[in-house]
Amino acid sequence: MQTLTVPLGSRSYPIHVGAGLLGKPELFSAHLLQPKVAVVTNATIAPLYLEPLCRALATLGVSAARIVLPDGEAYKTSDTLHRIFDVLIEQRCERKTAVLALGGGVVGDLAGFAAATYQRGVPYIQLPTTLLAQVDSAVGGKTAINHARGKNMIGAFYQPIAVIADTDALSTLPDRELSAGIAEVVKYGLIRDAPFFEWLERHVIRLCRREPEALEHAILISCRNKAEIVGLDERETGLRALLNYGHTFGHAIEAGLGYGAWLHGEAVACGMVLAARLSERLGMLASDETQRIVDVLSRAGLPVARPDLGFDRYLELMGHDKKVEGGRMRFILMRGIGSGEIRDDVPLSELRAALGY
Amino acid sequence: MQTLTVPLGSRSYPIHVGAGLLGKPELFSAHLLQPKVAVVTNATIAPLYLEPLCRALATLGVSAARIVLPDGEAYKTSDTLHRIFDVLIEQRCERKTAVLALGGGVVGDLAGFAAATYQRGVPYIQLPTTLLAQVDSAVGGKTAINHARGKNMIGAFYQPIAVIADTDALSTLPDRELSAGIAEVVKYGLIRDAPFFEWLERHVIRLCRREPEALEHAILISCRNKAEIVGLDERETGLRALLNYGHTFGHAIEAGLGYGAWLHGEAVACGMVLAARLSERLGMLASDETQRIVDVLSRAGLPVARPDLGFDRYLELMGHDKKVEGGRMRFILMRGIGSGEIRDDVPLSELRAALGY
Repeated sequence: MQTLTVPLGSRSYPIHVGAGLLGKPELFSAHLLQPKVAVVTNATIAPLYLEPLCRALATLGVSAARIVLPDGEAYKTSDTLHRIFDVLIEQRCERKTAVLALGGGVVGDLAGFAAATYQRGVPYIQLPTTLLAQVDSAVGGKTAINHARGKNMIGAFYQPIAVIADTDALSTLPDRELSAGIAEVVKYGLIRDAPFFEWLERHVIRLCRREPEALEHAILISCRNKAEIVGLDERETGLRALLNYGHTFGHAIEAGLGYGAWLHGEAVACGMVLAARLSERLGMLASDETQRIVDVLSRAGLPVARPDLGFDRYLELMGHDKKVEGGRMRFILMRGIGSGEIRDDVPLSELRAALGY
Repeated sequence: MQTLTVPLGSRSYPIHVGAGLLGKPELFSAHLLQPKVAVVTNATIAPLYLEPLCRALATLGVSAARIVLPDGEAYKTSDTLHRIFDVLIEQRCERKTAVLALGGGVVGDLAGFAAATYQRGVPYIQLPTTLLAQVDSAVGGKTAINHARGKNMIGAFYQPIAVIADTDALSTLPDRELSAGIAEVVKYGLIRDAPFFEWLERHVIRLCRREPEALEHAILISCRNKAEIVGLDERETGLRALLNYGHTFGHAIEAGLGYGAWLHGEAVACGMVLAARLSERLGMLASDETQRIVDVLSRAGLPVARPDLGFDRYLELMGHDKKVEGGRMRFILMRGIGSGEIRDDVPLSELRAALGY
């Protein structure tokens, strides 16, 4: 097991990464304020990991209320959030009852937002079971639900008290979801870690083959990058926006196709290619760099060609992005691989060309 | 106009109290990050103050999206919250678009919670138009909606960037709501300000007659007490719980009768009497002190006799209170007028007796 820290003063918390961690309840019981938790998970994860986790907790005298949600981005809604609240209230969970988020990004975002707002905030622990959640969504305190007209439109910045990433959980992850997670791993290389991108160019195939050492390395380097950024800019007043690289396009793709058609990581992969093409058009990126990005993502089994929503629809969907400011669209672009940059002066004609319309 | 500060470091903010402040848009335009706001108000307040406010803002070039909600505690729900989100999205409000909460406690709690969670948090300004909101709910960053099984069960601690209390707005307040506000004013005297309680014993009738100097004094002293408490314990880990004096009983009364039957301040008034009786039974308060409390509240036109919900129902309803910890009920009691105290060791028999069952 290796441990990093997200440096946020009195709200700092550890990220533990390693094999078999879900079977080590003492890792998280150390953080509990009372011998009772509420575990939020989904119908796919529950049969695999819920009962072993509850049994492990029981050995330490910790009882667990179980909240099993339907699986999928389509359920990251206000209705599902209220199902969590209903059980928390029914089970008389209190301000010191911790919520455990056992699952991928959707479970983490939902359970985290429930924890942020139940009784105005209760402690929660992220137990990410997908690669995407382990390298990205479980770290940094962004929680949210979707609105019919925009992804993650309703949410809160609310930090967990610990993140425990059990790499064994990745053994049951479908290939498509593994690839989706690799998209966010690649992102860290692109926005701030060129040596890591080069490592990925050499080793991405080992991630696809689920080689434990390669996965653990990729998770640690990704979390280290994310923890540093979050420590410097928790509420996304500047630097943290770089983490949205590929996401302005990606969110438009997800919303345009209907949530759930493409996985989040798939849409982000395609969005990163579009952002690279836009960077290239603005003279910030060489064409062979764009090609290297396309290559890595393709080898990870990710889509690199955008779906045809029509230019107007792309524009409309991107206009609802949270990064819009003063009516201007902001883009995260690259000035060479490994160096993200925020721009709000992109001509519409270049955007159109980058999208191939 | 007088100005206090809620001392919260980089998140400190001013409370302005005075006559005619809603007609001085420069007071709040100083806080705006862009010349666009969303005003949340209700159907009672809108005809009185919404258009003048928007006209005043327009003189400074600030445009205002208008969100008019139905009036009443019964609408402090998830459905109403989503009506706010729908308009914020429709009107393309952004992360820097400020929300203005123009109204009483319900509008402030709803608009504040919407601001806390729209795009993970946008700035908001409280423009309280009721006495209760001016002395209590608009200050301190508690935002929430109700759940069918508990008041304020879902919410966030999220501070406004300013509070602007226009005492002229109290001229249109119904008598019953004025009285409800006085309940929270009396509360400050009881929990930490004996001289203020004595002032109220002498001058409460002037508040009922809406004498401007008396009202402004009561609002300022109340806000000063609240600002001090919030500055010391923003997230209610200890001291701030004193502000819930009367509220454990009060919330049970509100929920038991159905939200909206009694006003919040009315339920709190009755709850403060019940808490006084309980303090007296535990030897913490003299019986003549209880009587003085009953007298002040009665003279303010507030209910001092509890509704008959039955002891078991009271217990059940109080068991859902946010102040429950480790299954034990916690009570805010008084050790003499002016000195609140938290107790979690109240025998059930004394509770029953205090409730008169």
